[in-house]
Amino acid sequence: MTDLVERLLAGDRRALSRVLTRVENGTREGRDDLRRLYPRSGRAHTVGVTGGAGSGKSSLTGALAGELRRRGQRVGVIAVDPSSPFTQGAILGDRIRMQDLVLDEGVFVRSMAGRGALGGLAPAIDDVVAVMDAFGFPYVFIETVGAGQDEVEIAGTALTTVLVNNPGTGDDIQALKAGIIEIADVLVVNKADRPGADVLVSQLRALLALAPGEGRDPPILSTVATTGEGVPALVDAIDEHRAHLERTGALGRQRRREARHQVLSTAQRILLERIRAGTSEEALAELVAQVAGRSLDPHTAAERLVGAGRADAG
Amino acid sequence: MTDLVERLLAGDRRALSRVLTRVENGTREGRDDLRRLYPRSGRAHTVGVTGGAGSGKSSLTGALAGELRRRGQRVGVIAVDPSSPFTQGAILGDRIRMQDLVLDEGVFVRSMAGRGALGGLAPAIDDVVAVMDAFGFPYVFIETVGAGQDEVEIAGTALTTVLVNNPGTGDDIQALKAGIIEIADVLVVNKADRPGADVLVSQLRALLALAPGEGRDPPILSTVATTGEGVPALVDAIDEHRAHLERTGALGRQRRREARHQVLSTAQRILLERIRAGTSEEALAELVAQVAGRSLDPHTAAERLVGAGRADAG
Repeated sequence: MTDLVERLLAGDRRALSRVLTRVENGTREGRDDLRRLYPRSGRAHTVGVTGGAGSGKSSLTGALAGELRRRGQRVGVIAVDPSSPFTQGAILGDRIRMQDLVLDEGVFVRSMAGRGALGGLAPAIDDVVAVMDAFGFPYVFIETVGAGQDEVEIAGTALTTVLVNNPGTGDDIQALKAGIIEIADVLVVNKADRPGADVLVSQLRALLALAPGEGRDPPILSTVATTGEGVPALVDAIDEHRAHLERTGALGRQRRREARHQVLSTAQRILLERIRAGTSEEALAELVAQVAGRSLDPHTAAERLVGAGRADAG
Repeated sequence: MTDLVERLLAGDRRALSRVLTRVENGTREGRDDLRRLYPRSGRAHTVGVTGGAGSGKSSLTGALAGELRRRGQRVGVIAVDPSSPFTQGAILGDRIRMQDLVLDEGVFVRSMAGRGALGGLAPAIDDVVAVMDAFGFPYVFIETVGAGQDEVEIAGTALTTVLVNNPGTGDDIQALKAGIIEIADVLVVNKADRPGADVLVSQLRALLALAPGEGRDPPILSTVATTGEGVPALVDAIDEHRAHLERTGALGRQRRREARHQVLSTAQRILLERIRAGTSEEALAELVAQVAGRSLDPHTAAERLVGAGRADAG
């Protein structure tokens, strides 16, 4: 049985790794793998864990994975690291704390580089999620570094989004400003043993009261990831959110929203690839030089580029 | 003289506002405005001010603008607020602190919503920068909320990127993990009157020593934005960075990199608009339903979408 997809479906972790690499690299083989695996996906509970730098997202993800292991569940973890536009390389970080979990056969951790220079979440994150889902992990965690647009995109990918906050990190207006409270399904005050935790819980509650609610207010839970305090209750809240999605029919809507995002972003990627393939580096460099020299505006240059790409492709 | 672009070039702030709105909305008029204004741009010193939530970026940007006013300079400020993918509305925040500056004729503040659901920095940020540049502001500040990909994209747009850090906000590994230290031209420890400021300066220095240097290490400055402490020195460091870019010829490379990013991202936007225009909502919904139901994988769906969009467009 040398077929990688068959081996993956039989539970072979090395096959899983190799398929993930092909899918991440966007090769034709990877795309074929995905085509075969996609019908097997759609069962995992995908959970985004997101929050500011230093909020303890990684420790919390590790603690959640540990608790789920105690409950007899297998867990996939995707850690999205930011990458510099210059090096395009992934930087070590959260994985350091994940070492003890990595040795557990019931946990699979995949670290991904951040996004390319042209925006969009790490190119193949939806695809990586689908592969882990098809492998059969009942839970797939997606942990993102940073606060901002990444979180908003994760909310489009994950069924449940957990937003991690910390006491005493800044002005209270910042939480409102971040706006991402609106995308959270579960709010967590991590490092809850620090001063100010109760104040933060009250502030979050007040913010929720102000926000235009769509029925269900996200629960607010307190955790100390490093000791495991509050983690079982957080797992329960994550499970309860999925049950809520199923009860209300929101699961279907969420799946469609996710699919829509995936189709459109993939289409955009394909088109960009076509432009790049249909344009010589010299032609692009010439347009860029004119824009840099201000003799051509970017829109006109882009229209020429797109026109040329289409002519060559057709 | 009713022509908006002429009025803008004559220094009319209301014309500037109206042109910015047209450009932000991506209307045909906005595109025409931009085509006329673009050749007048390219003179401003564009400065990205970036850092985590609560780091005091807004206060610092305000303090920088105030110091430049004292030096007789006019300043444009673009505040990029994140927006929820659901409301797409900008949330108030930093502008509150900007009120006193807004009343100053030599300062122009523009608040922008964050990005659309498909990623990419606020659709027209490069265009907004170009318009402010053409208006004649010698300095244009771009302030972004959050830490992560936004910062990396700002680094592609701004000539000088100022990264704002704070003492005592988290594990030291977080700074490394964030990776964005690599894109900073000037490092700032803001709230330097708080405990731990010296430690943070040392940590940043150690990180810089580890990072693969390309010759010039970014200077590390300490500020207290709320009192103005250290702000004149920061203005000097920003000016010095621009002088460095000019001395070394890096300015031209930076302009070309910026132009390349702009051309490619605009091309991508045009293509996505074409897909949307060339596909009926029903056809898209049908593809999305199949993907959500796992009877079709996203790549195949995207290929069909792109194929259809092109056929309709051609």
